[in-house]
Amino acid sequence: MTLPVENLAINTIRTLVMDSIQAAKSGHPGTPMSMAPVAYLIFNELLNYDPAHPLWAQRDRFVLSSGHGSTLLYSVLHLAGVEQFKDGKPTGEKAVRIEDLKNFRQLDSRCPGHPEYGHTSGVEVTTGPLGQGLAMSVGHAIASKWFSAKYAKDGKDLFGFNVYSLCGDGCMMEGIASEAASLAGHLKLGNLCWIYDANKITIEGSTDLAFTEDVGKRFESYGWNVVRVEEDVNDLDALRRAFAAFRAENDRPTLIMVKSIIGYGAPNLAGTAKVHGAPLGEEEIRLAKEFYGWTYEKFAVPEEVAKLFADGIQTKGANVYAQWEKDFADYAAKYPELAKEFQMIQNGELPENWDEGLRKMWDADEKGTASRNSSGKSLNQLAAGIPWMLGGSADLAPSNKSDLTFEGAGEFGPENYAGRNFHFGIREFAMAAICNGMATCGLRSYCATFFVFCDYLRGALRLSCLMDLPILYILSHDSIGVGEDGPTHQPVEQLAALRSMPNLVVMRPCDANEVRFAYRWYAENKTSPVCMVVTRQDLPTLPRAVEPTGDQCACSCGVSKGAYVIRDAKNPATGTCDAILMASGSEVHICLSAQKMLEAKGIYARVVSVPSMELFERQDAEYRESVLPKACTRRVAVEAALQFGWDRYIGSEGKFIGMTGFGASAPFKQLYEFYGITAENVVNAVCE
Amino acid sequence: MTLPVENLAINTIRTLVMDSIQAAKSGHPGTPMSMAPVAYLIFNELLNYDPAHPLWAQRDRFVLSSGHGSTLLYSVLHLAGVEQFKDGKPTGEKAVRIEDLKNFRQLDSRCPGHPEYGHTSGVEVTTGPLGQGLAMSVGHAIASKWFSAKYAKDGKDLFGFNVYSLCGDGCMMEGIASEAASLAGHLKLGNLCWIYDANKITIEGSTDLAFTEDVGKRFESYGWNVVRVEEDVNDLDALRRAFAAFRAENDRPTLIMVKSIIGYGAPNLAGTAKVHGAPLGEEEIRLAKEFYGWTYEKFAVPEEVAKLFADGIQTKGANVYAQWEKDFADYAAKYPELAKEFQMIQNGELPENWDEGLRKMWDADEKGTASRNSSGKSLNQLAAGIPWMLGGSADLAPSNKSDLTFEGAGEFGPENYAGRNFHFGIREFAMAAICNGMATCGLRSYCATFFVFCDYLRGALRLSCLMDLPILYILSHDSIGVGEDGPTHQPVEQLAALRSMPNLVVMRPCDANEVRFAYRWYAENKTSPVCMVVTRQDLPTLPRAVEPTGDQCACSCGVSKGAYVIRDAKNPATGTCDAILMASGSEVHICLSAQKMLEAKGIYARVVSVPSMELFERQDAEYRESVLPKACTRRVAVEAALQFGWDRYIGSEGKFIGMTGFGASAPFKQLYEFYGITAENVVNAVCE
Repeated sequence: MTLPVENLAINTIRTLVMDSIQAAKSGHPGTPMSMAPVAYLIFNELLNYDPAHPLWAQRDRFVLSSGHGSTLLYSVLHLAGVEQFKDGKPTGEKAVRIEDLKNFRQLDSRCPGHPEYGHTSGVEVTTGPLGQGLAMSVGHAIASKWFSAKYAKDGKDLFGFNVYSLCGDGCMMEGIASEAASLAGHLKLGNLCWIYDANKITIEGSTDLAFTEDVGKRFESYGWNVVRVEEDVNDLDALRRAFAAFRAENDRPTLIMVKSIIGYGAPNLAGTAKVHGAPLGEEEIRLAKEFYGWTYEKFAVPEEVAKLFADGIQTKGANVYAQWEKDFADYAAKYPELAKEFQMIQNGELPENWDEGLRKMWDADEKGTASRNSSGKSLNQLAAGIPWMLGGSADLAPSNKSDLTFEGAGEFGPENYAGRNFHFGIREFAMAAICNGMATCGLRSYCATFFVFCDYLRGALRLSCLMDLPILYILSHDSIGVGEDGPTHQPVEQLAALRSMPNLVVMRPCDANEVRFAYRWYAENKTSPVCMVVTRQDLPTLPRAVEPTGDQCACSCGVSKGAYVIRDAKNPATGTCDAILMASGSEVHICLSAQKMLEAKGIYARVVSVPSMELFERQDAEYRESVLPKACTRRVAVEAALQFGWDRYIGSEGKFIGMTGFGASAPFKQLYEFYGITAENVVNAVCE
Repeated sequence: MTLPVENLAINTIRTLVMDSIQAAKSGHPGTPMSMAPVAYLIFNELLNYDPAHPLWAQRDRFVLSSGHGSTLLYSVLHLAGVEQFKDGKPTGEKAVRIEDLKNFRQLDSRCPGHPEYGHTSGVEVTTGPLGQGLAMSVGHAIASKWFSAKYAKDGKDLFGFNVYSLCGDGCMMEGIASEAASLAGHLKLGNLCWIYDANKITIEGSTDLAFTEDVGKRFESYGWNVVRVEEDVNDLDALRRAFAAFRAENDRPTLIMVKSIIGYGAPNLAGTAKVHGAPLGEEEIRLAKEFYGWTYEKFAVPEEVAKLFADGIQTKGANVYAQWEKDFADYAAKYPELAKEFQMIQNGELPENWDEGLRKMWDADEKGTASRNSSGKSLNQLAAGIPWMLGGSADLAPSNKSDLTFEGAGEFGPENYAGRNFHFGIREFAMAAICNGMATCGLRSYCATFFVFCDYLRGALRLSCLMDLPILYILSHDSIGVGEDGPTHQPVEQLAALRSMPNLVVMRPCDANEVRFAYRWYAENKTSPVCMVVTRQDLPTLPRAVEPTGDQCACSCGVSKGAYVIRDAKNPATGTCDAILMASGSEVHICLSAQKMLEAKGIYARVVSVPSMELFERQDAEYRESVLPKACTRRVAVEAALQFGWDRYIGSEGKFIGMTGFGASAPFKQLYEFYGITAENVVNAVCE
């Protein structure tokens, strides 16, 4: 049953939803109106959550995967009275004030069109791109299991939490949801609960148009616990029974399928696609309010509703948080090292000596090693220093060199939630989204696949960038250097496509020492995802001058600055260089060869290594000028990829040597010859 | 049972597989060795296929979705004796000669690492990126159903065909396979049969590591007919029974789950991940051949095996093809118009007067209309002229304006396979791959979604480009012009990301007439996919000079050349322009306003509209110079997107006005102000 005051609270959510969308003249009322009882119940009865501490590590997570229904989340965050935090500290303001709801979808409102992580406290992840919220919730559930397995002691778990995610038909149809659900079932994530708003309506009309599968059976096939709510969702007891079934289940994730009416209460629009994505209009709102028996002003929160939340989530939350603080103090007394570690995770800090393994310079070596190998080594050295760095590959670990091979790393799985090596399966998109979810819980998550398949996970990579999450993407097999696998497996446009993404740092190091420093940069950075683009084929390890500190080398600051002079040359007559050769990754070595050949002809060419255009762009004009002096217009850029994006550095008189289209299947050395990416051609380009 | 000669044929496939991979020192023998019986049976018994006419319209399709197992396909194409066609005509050569197998994965071999559409006859689509072959096979099955529904007469179907696709655990795990399977079940594609090689091994090891779902049950939930082959796959009768179950089923697609042993016959490696992606080595090959009782040379095809295929697929194929030619001649006599139309589809031609609807110029109109609206209108005008243009949206048709609204267009669905409006559901990736499959059958398929979600379908778009398929991608809501939905829905980097893709033509027209000509260019082009990037917000329809032909307008050649002077300005003193303003789409109007403001200051700025950088790059140097004269270095480019990719045109002294990061949620006009994408700022940039 539903108490009258509970019903009033649910209708408060609904009216806040309608009013904010009407004020904005824009928004999606349908789902929030139908799912208000679910949101009410989750927040005021189910969540282990203290509104005064929305960053509390053990809080239960709620992810609104149907991000377009943002007003549902905002309304309930408002009613719950969640505090706004900034940089980990309380601001003294509420996260969602009534004026934020009134300013829904306006510039600088805490209520943007879709929920934005980091912008509004209580928003656990940015959602809107369908399916991804679900996959991120799997990342949360994984983080919870890992924390429990690693830190819980003496049979008392201060670290694990439950994860709820609300989704609709849109999320359900997206492939990423299937990938994530299959993996969640495999991993037996009993702490994960998805609530599926089966309202049978999408933008084009009835789901009968395109979506007639048996969703419940599908989830059973993944090994999920499927619970159906066929009764009126306004009867909270029906929902309570469903959630009780979730809480009683430890070994399987739970899907609660809720039959609902989209836009519930709007007399003329409910149950139709029209209520999905547009304001109801003043008249329909009036009628809906009449239907709800609503007698208050616009944007009103009745006192008894405020009290209901004060007595509910706020009181309960304050108590559980206070108890947790006490328990954690006891824990810290008994397990100071673990407690310190756990707090560092929450604070986004690095352990002391995290870079110990990375300090050793690689010796110069003409044969060298593939950068995927030096990447694998650096990854292991780094992960040894950061105990909460964990991840894996989309079934390509042996190729990506992404396994943690040191003792105790372990395999993450239903038998061992403390493991650090993940088997994501051949599910690139879900993998990346899961890493996003894990990272929002403080973990340094990483994932790996072939570089060309970053296309499959691009939607999640974009969210890493939007959410400022320092996730590591290990992307091996970086060019036609892949060789025989051919054009489907040879990236040519992916470098440009990634370089175009805001806040992403693309690293394409030229040798083992650049790799090492790229990993250091990644680790110290807190706000940018990093793509580590590495080769399949061997690359020489270049000789480097050892700095006085002993553990550094000349490329250290160079890598962190994105581009640097790796080997200069000066014309004795002018005291400056005659030309500039620039390249990233494997092509730096071609430039170094060309430099020698040019010198034999009396042409002095500077070689600039460009491991990261983005980091170079972050430098001041003076540094950039010191590396690429404007006066030197005789420039050649070399990259086994497309020219797109290089023009900024080449200038109007420079030349580019690289690819002009897709690659081909053949041994890689032949391909470099075939496409003319050779030192000879660099020399010709300079001489022309 | 399996006759000895059949067994010999199967082992011929296996030994060709092993030998070619060993010769290449690279390749994937595992699946081909286990699935050789399936490939044998499909080609020599099941396919309605004439090796002499691999482009025959009614042929059954076979798609090797596990493209890495390419040697399986190549071997069986060799045994079947498929002819090599080029530009629709026989070359007199076999598609796969023994020397091609010997040159597997070498430059210019007909046997590249992964099957490439258009390169080797008999290869129906390019595969390798996992999951996509399956989705493309759904496109084939749809095309088959559409052809039957539209062209079959008098109870006789000369047009429909069956579609087989072979996949492994990799394809099964990919989200796109789930999307495609769900839609195929919904559409009741009884002509579709997927064969799942359930060998339980992926690159990282056992599928138990990441993939323990009940695949059969999952497909049942999609409404598929699921058939399990638990017996030894080397017993062809077990397979025959399974395929008979497929053929007996009309209303559901069929999944045949085949339990197999990866690398069957290799005594030390079979059943392990080691046999997935590397040559077996001479010694293991010797032992495997011993196991098969193989007594022939390397690359041998025993005479009785050649005869088996001659008596099988070749004889049967020749007969059915001859009969079809006869039947089609009768059909053409009775239904000349339909027959002509069907042949035009096969030849990739356009009907006479296809552009009739598009000839009418839009009148100048200051208020104008959103380019999504003019796109919708052009789409309808074009589709009215090309009866085999068909497609739809990923549930955003009302927003994308992608519905065909003219009479008789109809809705494609299980009740009406002749419909032309598709409901792909919220499955962007499968949608695009399905369009690829349909296009390889000659249909002019199109799809639509929000521009920002092209990230979700990028993997399939890449295959459109690789396969030279002229697919139309309608991508609306093209910038911060989206407004309130915020950064998750506002593309900023997508233009650059798409412009970087080889063979893709990105069109961002500035008004209704540019849209119209962009559609014309799309229709006449036969080899490039086209992204039509259009606005949500209104754009003025610019005044255009009518050309003497009456139905053309000044922008006609301009659009097809990618960039053109839309409104020139000359300084009376110098007779030339003082500055160049360039933009695409909605920002062209900002430049035109700035032009006026500059003129008031005595600065004469030319405005260049750049609807497509790719088409501009295809022009000769003279034309490019005529539009962007080198002498004029005072340049400003304006685009509500990132600068990345514009430097080529801006030059080192030019400026860019646009975005520098992700957008925000607010009404779009405010956002343009907020980000400074205004005529005032263009004026300032020129004056600075």
